[in-house]
Amino acid sequence: MHVLAESRRVPAGAAVLRGDITEAIQAAVVEELAQVGYGRLSIEAVARRAGVAKTAVYRRWGSKLEMVLEIVSGLAGQKLPLPDTGTLQGDLMILLQILTRALRHPLASQVIPDLLAEAARNPQIGEKLQQALRGNQHEIGALLIGRAVERGELPADTDPDLAVDLIVGPVYWHLAVTRNPVPADYVPRLVSAIIAGLTG
Amino acid sequence: MHVLAESRRVPAGAAVLRGDITEAIQAAVVEELAQVGYGRLSIEAVARRAGVAKTAVYRRWGSKLEMVLEIVSGLAGQKLPLPDTGTLQGDLMILLQILTRALRHPLASQVIPDLLAEAARNPQIGEKLQQALRGNQHEIGALLIGRAVERGELPADTDPDLAVDLIVGPVYWHLAVTRNPVPADYVPRLVSAIIAGLTG
Repeated sequence: MHVLAESRRVPAGAAVLRGDITEAIQAAVVEELAQVGYGRLSIEAVARRAGVAKTAVYRRWGSKLEMVLEIVSGLAGQKLPLPDTGTLQGDLMILLQILTRALRHPLASQVIPDLLAEAARNPQIGEKLQQALRGNQHEIGALLIGRAVERGELPADTDPDLAVDLIVGPVYWHLAVTRNPVPADYVPRLVSAIIAGLTG
Repeated sequence: MHVLAESRRVPAGAAVLRGDITEAIQAAVVEELAQVGYGRLSIEAVARRAGVAKTAVYRRWGSKLEMVLEIVSGLAGQKLPLPDTGTLQGDLMILLQILTRALRHPLASQVIPDLLAEAARNPQIGEKLQQALRGNQHEIGALLIGRAVERGELPADTDPDLAVDLIVGPVYWHLAVTRNPVPADYVPRLVSAIIAGLTG
């Protein structure tokens, strides 16, 4: 196996961490989380998968928990590419298409459920994950719902939090929990129902 | 530790399994699943928690997988006590109150996410869990939505599956995923939005 060696390009004594090695480790952590879950994840297996020495991992993070916390909060908090089409209907169509694709990724179907289960045993994981998920929730509420209210498409007293539950909850339930097949016209029908729910 | 012994009341040679021991083991499995997750669950720890000998577990199930499959499919498939108040609004108010309570139970917040994550590594677990969840989904759709259509409260072409996504998805997302606090008026506001979404 080819092992990426940090020392190759780093001058002796310098504490520079190669970015490509950090990225390889981060990708390996997500793959290991999906494959074995947090409980059985080992630094050794992460290093092996990334093709680096264990020391390369420990140079970056002090422990498995620290490593997973940083990577998870980065991923779960990734800003969704929020659409701005000029209408609520257009924005929701695009957002829900993005979500139905994202929810098929192992990050949503394996890693997030695994960490949600782990959260009860490990409050720090729970906190980071919830922070990240709520960050996204607030962002969708503030931007997508905020703009629709400004345009007069939604009542001024629309609760952004309830609105996001109505937008994200049904697709999450359908794709990540019951994992039912998604009919071709599911997204447009759901968008109509959500808009009726928010305006009715 | 007091160990429940099957032989106490069973005549020699009889293959009768004591129901109270089966129940103690089932409860211990759910508690262990919540505490350590499927990956780290051991028959030994289950037996210890239930206060029985390991042989009592193996007399009932051939393996950890078999044991978890049967218990999970029993629990996740438990019939929700579906209300029949005579109006969609009344039924939804009660159903959502039941759901917001049920979703705070470790079974929903730890065991189901853990098994959803496990499902990708273990297709048999995925299949049982989905069967059970879909069973409940169909039941709510057929009874609650079916009756509302019969009463003329919902259009005849209402899609029961989309309707259940709209009813269950938002509370599941709010309570079991983002785990945000639930405002006092959350359920009535959500019910209004769901009804508007289904009729609008």
